[in-house]
Amino acid sequence: MGGFCLSSIPESTQIGHHVTIEDHVTVGENVVIGHNSVILEGTKIDNNVTIGCNCVLGIKPAINQRMRKTSNTTELVIKAGTRIGHLVSIYAGVQVGEEVFIGDHASIRENTIVGDKTVIGRAAIVELNTQIGDSCTIQTMAYITGDTIIEDNVFVGPCVSMSNDKYMGARSYSLKGPFIKNGAKIGNNASLLPGVNIGNNTIVGAGSVVTKHLENGVIAVGIPAKKIGLSEER
Amino acid sequence: MGGFCLSSIPESTQIGHHVTIEDHVTVGENVVIGHNSVILEGTKIDNNVTIGCNCVLGIKPAINQRMRKTSNTTELVIKAGTRIGHLVSIYAGVQVGEEVFIGDHASIRENTIVGDKTVIGRAAIVELNTQIGDSCTIQTMAYITGDTIIEDNVFVGPCVSMSNDKYMGARSYSLKGPFIKNGAKIGNNASLLPGVNIGNNTIVGAGSVVTKHLENGVIAVGIPAKKIGLSEER
Amino acid sequence: MGGFCLSSIPESTQIGHHVTIEDHVTVGENVVIGHNSVILEGTKIDNNVTIGCNCVLGIKPAINQRMRKTSNTTELVIKAGTRIGHLVSIYAGVQVGEEVFIGDHASIRENTIVGDKTVIGRAAIVELNTQIGDSCTIQTMAYITGDTIIEDNVFVGPCVSMSNDKYMGARSYSLKGPFIKNGAKIGNNASLLPGVNIGNNTIVGAGSVVTKHLENGVIAVGIPAKKIGLSEER
Repeated sequence: MGGFCLSSIPESTQIGHHVTIEDHVTVGENVVIGHNSVILEGTKIDNNVTIGCNCVLGIKPAINQRMRKTSNTTELVIKAGTRIGHLVSIYAGVQVGEEVFIGDHASIRENTIVGDKTVIGRAAIVELNTQIGDSCTIQTMAYITGDTIIEDNVFVGPCVSMSNDKYMGARSYSLKGPFIKNGAKIGNNASLLPGVNIGNNTIVGAGSVVTKHLENGVIAVGIPAKKIGLSEER
Repeated sequence: MGGFCLSSIPESTQIGHHVTIEDHVTVGENVVIGHNSVILEGTKIDNNVTIGCNCVLGIKPAINQRMRKTSNTTELVIKAGTRIGHLVSIYAGVQVGEEVFIGDHASIRENTIVGDKTVIGRAAIVELNTQIGDSCTIQTMAYITGDTIIEDNVFVGPCVSMSNDKYMGARSYSLKGPFIKNGAKIGNNASLLPGVNIGNNTIVGAGSVVTKHLENGVIAVGIPAKKIGLSEER
Repeated sequence: MGGFCLSSIPESTQIGHHVTIEDHVTVGENVVIGHNSVILEGTKIDNNVTIGCNCVLGIKPAINQRMRKTSNTTELVIKAGTRIGHLVSIYAGVQVGEEVFIGDHASIRENTIVGDKTVIGRAAIVELNTQIGDSCTIQTMAYITGDTIIEDNVFVGPCVSMSNDKYMGARSYSLKGPFIKNGAKIGNNASLLPGVNIGNNTIVGAGSVVTKHLENGVIAVGIPAKKIGLSEER
């Protein structure tokens, strides 16, 4: 290993070249850390976690006048059996569940929970204050805005876009992302507006723009998205 | 510091591990450079700039038969108080203003100016020959095409897409991106076509496709975007 | 050079700082490898290839219960005169042709062929089991889903989205991406649904959603995309 390690880590850890592990990092058994990855202060990595090359994990949120401060940011916790790709960034204050898969170039911000066995696709971005349930699939390049709730078994297609700011910065407004319920499926490149609810097992067609709540078990398509039928599972 | 530094930099600089700073780089007071970042030849960094980990700054544009050559590319200048995230790439020939915030995974190409106090979101991409004014917010994953002009106080929502080539490579054509005027707001995942003007304080709805100029102070939505009302500020 | 190199490489190779070159890597004449890049086991790099900083090349696909296994993954081959940007990830089992240009932050998965003189734009993502022909332009942030075929001289605009799973994970289904024929042009932020054919020289408008096959030489726009005319080249 040709890196810097300021924490005490088990002998079973497999560490690449030019890795930096800062102070107060805890590492479980049989962890792999790829070349050039940076593990910042306070990160907790459970057993059998694999981390790719050129990642930055445990980032402290910037305090910027234009960015929201978040109060309860603590450490980054990555649970057992999770696999993280290459060129990934994850903030402090994130809890990543067991056996999660996080694709290359993905990014996850603070105060966020990712449930067990969920897949976060390549170059997908998850913003702050967000909950993602178990066994979800968030596809490549999907954008999960801040203040979003995604329940279990949800499918978010590639390049789906969401927003959480109704007035686009023009007014003081309580930011609110979408609320996507169990088993819902969002087609590729659909757009979800701030605060919309997507019902259980509801299906949104590709390229649709969802401007209003959608009830449980419907199929909705178009701009704005309108109900065209019922989904098989309700 | 476990890196390579070929330039003379002040003692107040805080440099991470495995950093590379090439020749002819100038660094102001109280600059922070994260682990594994690469600062290429000719970059000028002002006081109180913070740079994250695994960045590549000061990239010389490639000369490729299929890519446009740009003549007046010089150095990358990053002004005082600006904060750059992690895994960011910025080219030579870019001027980044004061107190700008550039999110993780973002990328900015040559011959581009970013005004003071502007936010460039995470994984947003700004192409060449582009001007972005002061106090703009370019949200996460937005795509600012080449040859674009964005004035001050503009809001570009997440995943907004733009293009600058009317004939999609089929004809010789003077490339022209959108021209977005003061205070305009573009909803998430909207698409702007080559050369369209978006008027002062005009609002474009999420998922819209703007194919023609929009006058000042209107609200426009749909595919193609049509005026449905007037914005509050005109 | 301040890196680790376990393979025997020619003296003409220009290697940056903190580079890692694993075992069984072959490197042609006059190759440039940027700072912090990682070249993994079994990668074959031809003459006059340029690789940027902070790249990860030759990634072995993860074997994850939720991800498809791919059987015939072998090495990554990068042919002569190709130029790869910064912060790029490419998997083992990819063949990149001659004089290809791959933009910064792009990513290409296994079992994929990229033809000669093709441009893969910045932050574009190409998924597994995909063929891209010669002299194509895949623009910035375009998403090429898995199991896609793109013939020669195709233009895929910025932020174009594709999908290959008709049932969004709900049923066992043979995944099938779009089939885009010679000379077709896809406008920015268009969405292509699983298995659609786009005919020779056909043009798809920006923001359109293509739900059905499009014949040769037509212009199609809207949601869903409908034929509105004939393209100049047929």
